[in-house]
Amino acid sequence: MKFTCTQIALVKAINTVSRAVSVRTTIPILKGILMNVKDGRLTLSASDLDLSIETSIDVQASEEGSAVVSSKLFGDIIRKLPNSLVNISSAEGKINIQCIGSDFSIVALPSDEFPVIGSIETKNFIELKKEDLSELIKRIVFAASIDEKKGILTGCLMNFEPDCLEMVALDGFRMAVAKKAVNTGESRKIIVPARILSEITKILSDDEGSDTISLVIEDKKIEILTEDTRVVARLLEGDFIKYNEIIPSSYKTRVITGREDMLSSIERASLLAKEGKNNLVKLTISKDSIDISSRSEEGNVNEHVGAEVQGDDLVIGFNSKYLLDVLKAVSDDEICFELGTSVSSCLIKPVEGNDYTYLVLPVRISVA
Amino acid sequence: MKFTCTQIALVKAINTVSRAVSVRTTIPILKGILMNVKDGRLTLSASDLDLSIETSIDVQASEEGSAVVSSKLFGDIIRKLPNSLVNISSAEGKINIQCIGSDFSIVALPSDEFPVIGSIETKNFIELKKEDLSELIKRIVFAASIDEKKGILTGCLMNFEPDCLEMVALDGFRMAVAKKAVNTGESRKIIVPARILSEITKILSDDEGSDTISLVIEDKKIEILTEDTRVVARLLEGDFIKYNEIIPSSYKTRVITGREDMLSSIERASLLAKEGKNNLVKLTISKDSIDISSRSEEGNVNEHVGAEVQGDDLVIGFNSKYLLDVLKAVSDDEICFELGTSVSSCLIKPVEGNDYTYLVLPVRISVA
Repeated sequence: MKFTCTQIALVKAINTVSRAVSVRTTIPILKGILMNVKDGRLTLSASDLDLSIETSIDVQASEEGSAVVSSKLFGDIIRKLPNSLVNISSAEGKINIQCIGSDFSIVALPSDEFPVIGSIETKNFIELKKEDLSELIKRIVFAASIDEKKGILTGCLMNFEPDCLEMVALDGFRMAVAKKAVNTGESRKIIVPARILSEITKILSDDEGSDTISLVIEDKKIEILTEDTRVVARLLEGDFIKYNEIIPSSYKTRVITGREDMLSSIERASLLAKEGKNNLVKLTISKDSIDISSRSEEGNVNEHVGAEVQGDDLVIGFNSKYLLDVLKAVSDDEICFELGTSVSSCLIKPVEGNDYTYLVLPVRISVA
Repeated sequence: MKFTCTQIALVKAINTVSRAVSVRTTIPILKGILMNVKDGRLTLSASDLDLSIETSIDVQASEEGSAVVSSKLFGDIIRKLPNSLVNISSAEGKINIQCIGSDFSIVALPSDEFPVIGSIETKNFIELKKEDLSELIKRIVFAASIDEKKGILTGCLMNFEPDCLEMVALDGFRMAVAKKAVNTGESRKIIVPARILSEITKILSDDEGSDTISLVIEDKKIEILTEDTRVVARLLEGDFIKYNEIIPSSYKTRVITGREDMLSSIERASLLAKEGKNNLVKLTISKDSIDISSRSEEGNVNEHVGAEVQGDDLVIGFNSKYLLDVLKAVSDDEICFELGTSVSSCLIKPVEGNDYTYLVLPVRISVA
């Protein structure tokens, strides 16, 4: 293997595949990046077995072949080289890196142990706008459970309907549902680990290629293809929770308020809601306002926010973190809360349409 | 105590005094900020007993008085308020904070336990440019010892001569000396803890007042006065090392090279010099270049840097961290190394003049 490319292109490619490198693995080869030179292209690959990433760049190749290097060391070296041409070659278990006055020789890892990512087995592509997928993920991914013992709840549902993609995440205390009109031509449900979806949004935001990506769904994996990069994610197996049954169909109180005002008021009220770890804030909803209050040994706070209120007055408690997560995940100027009693779940929705629906369970409070 | 001021002015003042708040103290009052309203000014103070900071802002005062609040909670609240007018008042052990729709009531700490910073006892001011003091500190402070057991070596010498301020720090492995022509009118040596000098550079860089500051040196403390802020630092007691005797007066090899090239080459060579924790890099100095090399189990590297070399060829080992600290502390395009044998210390100086002198001890290497 022997090739020449620019430092800047190589750094970008390393940064992309590094997202799949296991930091804490006990399997040494999973700390590596596979380099493969063929037909004037260098393909870098990395995999933590759940998530695999492959990306290619044009290089000036004088000898085809492949080698595995330590992702950390190789990345550190290439990142610190000047922005110039880099010459890389492999020989006798060593990788040589040369750039202007710098000459590195680093140990190669055994490439036959590197996990095989495999090739695409179908021609059934779903075309999607990069920003549509990123927005859907951003709107729901925080609501999945981060507790590995929770199994299927650590994943997010991707519900493909022929003309729509709906995504859902829930952790037992709150739920997030978001949808986009997309011509998928499929009717299929898959569950993707939330951790991997978070990495995918980062890859999509770094990717400088076309605005459109392709999805390929196979039996146990989903592939996401950009112009130069291929991301393969292992699916979770099992049935997702019947989430539609949880969403209440009626409400007693409907509140429309400014999202940013609400966000900063709840953030401030949270400063005195750290005790007991449940971040309890109390919402007092009356004629034309919401008062958000909390108290601790250090003091108490009341935040007054103007609102358009229809229906009954209500006093209800929430874990402020769950409300803040929702208010940060969307960007509308105004947002709508639909509430029942002080012990029934609250829906948070756009003022018009159904692009997203959040459900947050209340915290029982002693109403003084 | 009752006053109104803008949120933005209050945030700046809190950020300034917070640098003196002890994070890990077991004395609860040292986690507080003292607010004192008098003559239309609000003065905030904080102290960790070694470092005390006082800063004042104009406020609309309707009642004079003082109170102590938790630095963390008060800072978090004020920072999260909107950029508007904030009304603050104290009553019955509580501090009320009101701003638009926000109403906080937080517990005050007992203000009679707050450490007294004391007033200035002399009229003997030394005038200094803010940037001159900051540059002197930046050039030497990293060379002080961070090991609390090293006593006087955790401090930096400030050597006031009538027409010059010289500062010195050393930790037993390297030494930094920097000087500026300043009309001090004094002949006096004091030792200031390096940790406090680092905080002082941050305070000076945040300070938006006049370019000139005043120093007041007293028996056991130094005071630094900007337009609105007063910093009082406790001095270390004892005699500083006779540093002039350590500086070699002759050399066998003199090298002039580009500072940035040298910096990035040593940084890259360090990537393979992590083992054994001494960051060993080997410098091979010959006719018109320096080769910087290092090796570990992961591989080896050679960096070739062009240089103007006078005198003998030399092979010498260094802890790369000590060289990097020096190369980062100055900003000259070119820099000069003066060397003796492979076991004698190396001087790093400007190509002309004596604004700074660094001394770095070599690491003994087996020259193959």
